[in-house]
Amino acid sequence: MLKEIIYQQGELAKKAARKLAVTSTEDKNQALQAMATELRTRQAEIIEANQLDLKEGKEKGLTKALLDRLLLTPERIEDMAKGLEALVALPDPIGEVTSMWIRPGNLQIGKVRVPLGVVGIIYESRPNVTVDAAGLCLKTGNAVILRGGSEAFRSNKAICSILNGALDKVGMPKGAVQLIETTDRAAVDILLKMNQFLDVLIPRGGASLIQNVVQNATVPVIETGVGNCHIYVDEGADLEMAKRIVLNAKTQRPGVCNAVETLLVHAKEAEEFLPSMAQALLEAGVELRGCPETRKIVKEALEATEEDWATEYLDYILAIKVVQNIDEAIDHIERYGTKHSEAIITKDYRRARYFQERVDAAAVYVNASTRFTDGFQFGFGAEIGISTQKLHARGPMGPLELTTYKYIINGDGQIRI
Amino acid sequence: MLKEIIYQQGELAKKAARKLAVTSTEDKNQALQAMATELRTRQAEIIEANQLDLKEGKEKGLTKALLDRLLLTPERIEDMAKGLEALVALPDPIGEVTSMWIRPGNLQIGKVRVPLGVVGIIYESRPNVTVDAAGLCLKTGNAVILRGGSEAFRSNKAICSILNGALDKVGMPKGAVQLIETTDRAAVDILLKMNQFLDVLIPRGGASLIQNVVQNATVPVIETGVGNCHIYVDEGADLEMAKRIVLNAKTQRPGVCNAVETLLVHAKEAEEFLPSMAQALLEAGVELRGCPETRKIVKEALEATEEDWATEYLDYILAIKVVQNIDEAIDHIERYGTKHSEAIITKDYRRARYFQERVDAAAVYVNASTRFTDGFQFGFGAEIGISTQKLHARGPMGPLELTTYKYIINGDGQIRI
Repeated sequence: MLKEIIYQQGELAKKAARKLAVTSTEDKNQALQAMATELRTRQAEIIEANQLDLKEGKEKGLTKALLDRLLLTPERIEDMAKGLEALVALPDPIGEVTSMWIRPGNLQIGKVRVPLGVVGIIYESRPNVTVDAAGLCLKTGNAVILRGGSEAFRSNKAICSILNGALDKVGMPKGAVQLIETTDRAAVDILLKMNQFLDVLIPRGGASLIQNVVQNATVPVIETGVGNCHIYVDEGADLEMAKRIVLNAKTQRPGVCNAVETLLVHAKEAEEFLPSMAQALLEAGVELRGCPETRKIVKEALEATEEDWATEYLDYILAIKVVQNIDEAIDHIERYGTKHSEAIITKDYRRARYFQERVDAAAVYVNASTRFTDGFQFGFGAEIGISTQKLHARGPMGPLELTTYKYIINGDGQIRI
Repeated sequence: MLKEIIYQQGELAKKAARKLAVTSTEDKNQALQAMATELRTRQAEIIEANQLDLKEGKEKGLTKALLDRLLLTPERIEDMAKGLEALVALPDPIGEVTSMWIRPGNLQIGKVRVPLGVVGIIYESRPNVTVDAAGLCLKTGNAVILRGGSEAFRSNKAICSILNGALDKVGMPKGAVQLIETTDRAAVDILLKMNQFLDVLIPRGGASLIQNVVQNATVPVIETGVGNCHIYVDEGADLEMAKRIVLNAKTQRPGVCNAVETLLVHAKEAEEFLPSMAQALLEAGVELRGCPETRKIVKEALEATEEDWATEYLDYILAIKVVQNIDEAIDHIERYGTKHSEAIITKDYRRARYFQERVDAAAVYVNASTRFTDGFQFGFGAEIGISTQKLHARGPMGPLELTTYKYIINGDGQIRI
């Protein structure tokens, strides 16, 4: 029964995707504008639904942080609307011929950017993802099936209903934006294996949600989000710069995937660097966990265990390890990193190149904070998540990463000999 | 025990991949040349092993076609060696900065092409895949783990041993090219879930092999190969051209994925076109299966069932359906196609564009044979398979499709505010 309902949604999405693929830029932009307007006009409905979610969340004992992520205010709804309007201003990637060439016999081959088709997004908590994902998929000509977290169910439902009101008004195909309208977990299992209707699944949320999708989906998945990021302070680095960057990468927003989790320090700099670095971190409320070398220098540091090196804290905690050279730093990153964002702080030109060439991660920094790994910071104008795998998309995923290509081949009777 | 052995191979491959990622173009090309030379020098070993495979194949009752695919001759080994030498001449895609830009605050962001890492290839029958895949992966800086078909086990083992002899001589990292050295099917199940060591799995072979991989892998998969391809003969088409193209697409090599399987004919052309088309096909030994309209015109056509429309024959069989208009043709392709290669034969400019825009397939042709969907025909200089899914790569996969990218970010102390 549930399967039938979700399959019907899949079929509707597929039909919508066919139409969206050939919908003009002007019509898609008009729809985005209509969505923004409708959100503003009907904001009371959203807040009402959100209050019910919040009430239930409190009863269930959600943490303050989670309740804050769930909360929608007029300001936050206005931000969602503005986000949609920002999409209007972005270039439409669809239809771009990225290359075209002639083969012997005058066969012309072109590579054209096209939508992926039907995108499935499984996410937690923050209801703004509902609007962001719907908008970005529409901009790129994709139909989307959204499966939000149960704690935001009423909010997501209200938002989706409003977005669909707008899409109807401007004549967008029915099924372009759909929400899975149940909190039943069985719905996720169905989505994971719905290859006939879904072209890709993007999980957004905590490690367990992502692992469930990666382990059980037969639909192609873009793995996102887990960031066990490192900053390596090289021999001879500008230690003031290093301090500023580490402090930023750890404390500017510790709950996100591009925050730093382990600091690696060259042995020759440890004694000079670590005391003042530690002091600044402790003052910012960061708990430190160090290797034996670190703990000789920083008394406040607790003992770091093997588990610490592998942990994405997403919190005011930082692991610190003293390393003998750049290769030990790179080996540590290779072993414990999640291929998200890695940085070196150095003055040495050769080692800057060496680190950037050898570290295998979506974003490899020299002398900058890992916090820049973000679709907006990169200048993409939007973001659907940060990929930590290597197929299709790596790092921040903007509009281009929601597209694929097809070849168009123009001939005048060519046959293969 | 088997798991331990394969995990050790995985670990070795990962180590090799780190080194290969920073191996120079010159060194990789030298290795490819050494592989070609070694194949030639030690060809007797390959033929000896191949004879044992053939003997066992005959005893097991393999078909003539399968035995021919398995057979290695001095000429075929020379072709393998030449294939490796052709890779030497291709540009090295690794290290290319495909774009680079400056963000506010003078943060410089570049997108650099890098290898995927460790590629797993699961394939059947033809032992030349062993050489092609090893060569293409090496050229693109990837380590490769090969799992060939059991019927070619001895041939593949001999080839791999020879390739590794060459790689050792020129100092390539151990583990760059590895074969799973057992015919135990459990090895495949292990590979499918070896996410810690494999960056991608590419299945090459029949539909059941591919479905097993797609359904059971947790490693990201690039689905390849199944091609239920269509040619639509439009109203007013050049019927001589249509005949030539259909005949070529069906009979030039019927056992491959880019051969046509269903012919769609506009109702207004059916009476004029089908008799002479059918005659040419019948003379070439093609069995015809038609819709009721077709069978009124072509008496030799058997009745096409629902199953026929969905079947990739890979044989001298063609399904034929008369359609009322281009939309019915596109709908039929949408319903039964496998997103591989689709063609329209037309003189009409508007409908040529209409078809190319609306048909969702890796390659959409106007007035040319579907048989051109091939890495060599497209000018890529090599091919690892033809992707029929939308993530990462679509259509013929050449050297570029065995790469991904990373972002390198150069700063001078930037932090996020």
